[in-house]
Amino acid sequence: MPGEFELIARHFAALTPARGGVVLGPGDDAALLDLPPGRELVVTVDTLVAGVHFFDDCPPAALGHKALAVNLSDLAAMGAEPAWALLALTLPEVDDSWLAQFASGFAALAREFDVSLVGGDTCRGPLAISVTALGHAPRGQALRRRGARPGDGIYVSGEIGAAGLAVRQRRSEITLPPVLAAHAAQRLDYPQPRVTLGLALRGLASAAVDVSDGLLADLGHICAASRTGARLDLNRLPLPDGALDVASHDSLLGFGDDYELCFTVPPQHAPTLRALAASAGCAVTRIGQIEAVPGLCLVDASGNVRPVAGGGHDHFR
Amino acid sequence: MPGEFELIARHFAALTPARGGVVLGPGDDAALLDLPPGRELVVTVDTLVAGVHFFDDCPPAALGHKALAVNLSDLAAMGAEPAWALLALTLPEVDDSWLAQFASGFAALAREFDVSLVGGDTCRGPLAISVTALGHAPRGQALRRRGARPGDGIYVSGEIGAAGLAVRQRRSEITLPPVLAAHAAQRLDYPQPRVTLGLALRGLASAAVDVSDGLLADLGHICAASRTGARLDLNRLPLPDGALDVASHDSLLGFGDDYELCFTVPPQHAPTLRALAASAGCAVTRIGQIEAVPGLCLVDASGNVRPVAGGGHDHFR
Repeated sequence: MPGEFELIARHFAALTPARGGVVLGPGDDAALLDLPPGRELVVTVDTLVAGVHFFDDCPPAALGHKALAVNLSDLAAMGAEPAWALLALTLPEVDDSWLAQFASGFAALAREFDVSLVGGDTCRGPLAISVTALGHAPRGQALRRRGARPGDGIYVSGEIGAAGLAVRQRRSEITLPPVLAAHAAQRLDYPQPRVTLGLALRGLASAAVDVSDGLLADLGHICAASRTGARLDLNRLPLPDGALDVASHDSLLGFGDDYELCFTVPPQHAPTLRALAASAGCAVTRIGQIEAVPGLCLVDASGNVRPVAGGGHDHFR
Repeated sequence: MPGEFELIARHFAALTPARGGVVLGPGDDAALLDLPPGRELVVTVDTLVAGVHFFDDCPPAALGHKALAVNLSDLAAMGAEPAWALLALTLPEVDDSWLAQFASGFAALAREFDVSLVGGDTCRGPLAISVTALGHAPRGQALRRRGARPGDGIYVSGEIGAAGLAVRQRRSEITLPPVLAAHAAQRLDYPQPRVTLGLALRGLASAAVDVSDGLLADLGHICAASRTGARLDLNRLPLPDGALDVASHDSLLGFGDDYELCFTVPPQHAPTLRALAASAGCAVTRIGQIEAVPGLCLVDASGNVRPVAGGGHDHFR
């Protein structure tokens, strides 16, 4: 049986690109990386734990994809260009077939965004995957949660709520029609980090966050950091077809795992955004407006306004 | 109960220094860091899993210390200056007292080496701690495992084997006399990363590695990367007092968890190293020599030479 040092190397080395800036990759005590001049380093870590962040029957390739995707989503929310990743893999046992599938999912996404795996750690224990993603952005130009101003439009990429529907279905809490079930499962297992959109939003968006804990919770982060409130138009939410037949607006707004971008854009940049949205590779929908008064309000199709107390996914709540 | 987002912030924010280069710390989707000009980024990740890397009765403060220490040890082996860290913490439950102790151990070591905690992730699951440590070194000057040449002296910092003795005692495999038991437990729970020594070795050592998997295994990494062999003088090994009464040379060479530096120095730098060792804050002992012929040989007190097949700790062996 190969040693742990060879595990990552064997399954991953040939699978992820050797991009610029990698002075020394896996196989030493640490990686050596060269940051392009004029750039700030952007770095984040997210862990997926079996039974908490994914179901036991989650395909290993999906897990490899998702472990990297959730981190690239964080970089996207900062408007950062992804560059490198470290993988800390805790495995109950060595299973070559599992590792090969996991690596193929990880590597396919890494190749798509030219991310190089530069190091990591493999050990025995309850299945968990911790990925550190590193990227960069021109100095002073990264997007933050802080910066939204009253009057800014609130936008979200793609669509909201499908991954949460898949979670409820797998828990047997709801039953989805077949087409929606397949769509929701794909959204849960293979989230698409909005890297291209994030890069395009630099200089345009006043604040941004990725939707990992539920739209309400994550928009709440923007409002808290920006010291503003927000008004959401429920009938503008980009929901999966048929979602409202099986779940309420409120529950869809609380579902996590979407990995879309929620961001705010000042009115003067709205025309630029509309032009950009056509080439961003995903839908971009205006769903509300930043308000001066703190708190989140929901406006329904009839124009009725009601406050919400926040929400979203919290692993310790 | 506070949300997961507040957990790290509350226990750690005030405890770790806000050092230079932190453009944006915890609380956004990612951290923004400014690398000093002319420097390469040095980055590593290591995970500690309950029941694998530490015993269930390990004091939380020791765990906080060790989770950071093992990563700073990797940076030390690269001759890098530690700067920032990310903490991915998987906890079975929220225990404020546990978190406070864990944070105090982590923060004390972070303060000692001026490391700033810039981000992380907290989630529910089987207890595990994954730390990503980031540092930097002048471009082209980081130490590597590759670079040892036949004739270079082999050195090790501090002392070898005590942490492994503590592990065997806690597993009831051996019984240590009280003084050695206390010393060994301290070495296991509070390893001291040799950061100062690592910095001083730049321009002096031809290769370096940290001793985490056992001296034989880690020296083997230097030899493999450098395409050399090595000869170790058993009677020169810096062992704890009384260690040979309870364990053989071979087992002491295979024990992990020492977090010392093993490094090679060309003969012309030996006098500089001797001068430096006096101010490095730890013992530095010459324990052998790099050989042209591949493989490791052990020389005992009588001058008898025998080859070894390697060894060291491997979580999947």
